[in-house]
Amino acid sequence: MGPAPFFVSLVRFVVVAEFVDRMVGSPKFAGDPVFDVHRGGKMAISSTVALRDADDLSLSYTPGVARVCEAIAEDPAVADDYTWVPNTVAVVTDGSAVLGLGDIGPKASLPVMEGKAVLFKQFGGVDAIPLALDVRDVDAFVDTVARMAPSFGGINLEDIAAPRCFEIEAALQARVDIPVFHDDQHGTAIVTLAALFNALRLTGRREEDTSVVISGAGAAGVAIARILLASGVRRIALVDRKGVIHPGRDDLTPIKAEMAYETSEWGRRGSLADALEGADVFIGVSGGSVPESAIERMADDAIVFALANPTPEVHPDIARRHARVVATGRSDYPNQINNVLAFPGVFRGALDVRASRVTESMKVAAARALSDLVGDALSEAYVIPSPFDERVAPAVAGAVADAARAAGVARR
Amino acid sequence: MGPAPFFVSLVRFVVVAEFVDRMVGSPKFAGDPVFDVHRGGKMAISSTVALRDADDLSLSYTPGVARVCEAIAEDPAVADDYTWVPNTVAVVTDGSAVLGLGDIGPKASLPVMEGKAVLFKQFGGVDAIPLALDVRDVDAFVDTVARMAPSFGGINLEDIAAPRCFEIEAALQARVDIPVFHDDQHGTAIVTLAALFNALRLTGRREEDTSVVISGAGAAGVAIARILLASGVRRIALVDRKGVIHPGRDDLTPIKAEMAYETSEWGRRGSLADALEGADVFIGVSGGSVPESAIERMADDAIVFALANPTPEVHPDIARRHARVVATGRSDYPNQINNVLAFPGVFRGALDVRASRVTESMKVAAARALSDLVGDALSEAYVIPSPFDERVAPAVAGAVADAARAAGVARR
Repeated sequence: MGPAPFFVSLVRFVVVAEFVDRMVGSPKFAGDPVFDVHRGGKMAISSTVALRDADDLSLSYTPGVARVCEAIAEDPAVADDYTWVPNTVAVVTDGSAVLGLGDIGPKASLPVMEGKAVLFKQFGGVDAIPLALDVRDVDAFVDTVARMAPSFGGINLEDIAAPRCFEIEAALQARVDIPVFHDDQHGTAIVTLAALFNALRLTGRREEDTSVVISGAGAAGVAIARILLASGVRRIALVDRKGVIHPGRDDLTPIKAEMAYETSEWGRRGSLADALEGADVFIGVSGGSVPESAIERMADDAIVFALANPTPEVHPDIARRHARVVATGRSDYPNQINNVLAFPGVFRGALDVRASRVTESMKVAAARALSDLVGDALSEAYVIPSPFDERVAPAVAGAVADAARAAGVARR
Repeated sequence: MGPAPFFVSLVRFVVVAEFVDRMVGSPKFAGDPVFDVHRGGKMAISSTVALRDADDLSLSYTPGVARVCEAIAEDPAVADDYTWVPNTVAVVTDGSAVLGLGDIGPKASLPVMEGKAVLFKQFGGVDAIPLALDVRDVDAFVDTVARMAPSFGGINLEDIAAPRCFEIEAALQARVDIPVFHDDQHGTAIVTLAALFNALRLTGRREEDTSVVISGAGAAGVAIARILLASGVRRIALVDRKGVIHPGRDDLTPIKAEMAYETSEWGRRGSLADALEGADVFIGVSGGSVPESAIERMADDAIVFALANPTPEVHPDIARRHARVVATGRSDYPNQINNVLAFPGVFRGALDVRASRVTESMKVAAARALSDLVGDALSEAYVIPSPFDERVAPAVAGAVADAARAAGVARR
């Protein structure tokens, strides 16, 4: 054949492509790989029933569907078997704290929410719906989501600024009988705890003797402090931009005041560098930076989780000079702390048993299941499984379901 | 091989099936064909991007996704090309007027909303999300949906009781710049008008000379009256349970008072039977019944659309004794007036041109496109295409898109 037919095909392809682009309009950013993969969005609805003819319609739609409606009206639990609701999660944001971009508003947050929904499906088999809300008032946000609750089996809150995220989550969970889970808090906390369990095992530490400095008192920092407390860690210093949060400070928001009280046992004061002096563990979720000198003055066999993304609080190569275990949020270094290790399995497990909420014990169980997967392969460079380890979501889901039953919040 | 291996397979299948049923629990109603088709719901989310490894994640999710977010923050129109929003419609209800079942509440309405979503996908390629809201107050309903608007390209209101549905639709459309379309009103009105166009052609009538009696002044009846007015029909009697709605009545809701004024030209008074005396067209959307004697006293070549479902206001076999054209909502008689002929194409067209609303001219254009598909095949038993006629949605979509551009509400 020779090259001629190929060349003709190529010319034909280019001509057709240009024609199509002229017809439909070639959007801004076409040709950029990130934008090309986003073109038309990242998700779609699919039907799980056949609609070939009037008979199919009469089963899946009128008049047949009326009998399913009547059965649910008589017994709402019937919806658990005959609608998609028990497998469906709303991914809800107000766009106020999106990734590291900050307050970019609801519309601009949607690519992240779609990405989250795609991860929910791929890793947990969960049908997730992106809902970016144009609302900032806490009560209005809660009202809005509570009213939609009949349509969902769970609510994943996403990228909502602190301290509003704490109030919204608590108020919403009090209003609805399905799980409400702010992933920026609890997803991060679960995966961090899982990695910490293994880092403590590797360095021969016990939870109750370990001192932990958390830099950042936003959604992730507060949730990490809380899950550490629920796991038996007592020596915690939570640090914001003004230093260690302690009961003597008079500039604290209600949530920080609560955390000051909860983390008062260790008694540290002063700056982040002061707190790190001799500390066993550093967990950074602040986006700030930590000088090498502060890492150097930590305890022997120090553990450094520098989770700010894309720029860790301390570069992992520098941290490794002084710390035995280093983790980041990045996929190009060992020990990636990635929320996708938690939320798909957490919701999979909670939905499977129709849990009414996600308790602290369910979160700790998820972390324990995650850390157990590392098993005998444990090393400085392997304290947490890979996001693409196929054992992850089933293990987390099973542990969460068991813990939900044990906590008495499961309905089947 | 003989029958033995088959028998072994069968036994194995039965044993496994029983085991599975014991494990997962066999739900109530299992074995009923309608319920079996509804098991697990009728729809699912699917991903349109590959997530095989860290490289895929970095394009579809962090860090790549941040660039798409930033581009949308800078120019919201970028979301039209790089999210699923412009192809996505919320199917929103409060469960207050579901099919003929009435006020069964949000949870029990979900099988209908899922069915609608499946029809949207199959017939219009539209991604639709069922949202059943636990809210009854008009302002609260409007607030809730308006706040979600950034996540959708359109809002399909469904099964909301009159007169609340009118207030909600108007208030919501005033708040958002995406199409708001109450299908029980406008879907029914469009398909009814399409069938009427052809019935008038068949019986040699002109719109402006034709008298129409509409029984039922709820969502469908009011919308039909309005689209008839927009199409040049002047002689209209809208009838509720107390008789013809006219400006002399003192028991009218605001919407009925408005319609009394709009339909005052013909000047009919009295009962439904009084109104039908010599009338050209009967359109029933009431669920009541009409005696044969009243149909008998209509004009020659009468047109009877008895659309109550599953029981038409007058049985089509009885109506055919006196009327030349008879239509119902049923699939087992000729001329089925089925909303699925309208809403998928209406939204497809509106979304394709990013319309900000659905104008009356877009609805009339949809009806005209639908009626034109019948063409030369027009007969007493064929005044409207079948729901499974594949020409329907593209024809409606094209007409709606053109009309949107002509009306100046299209954004591309």
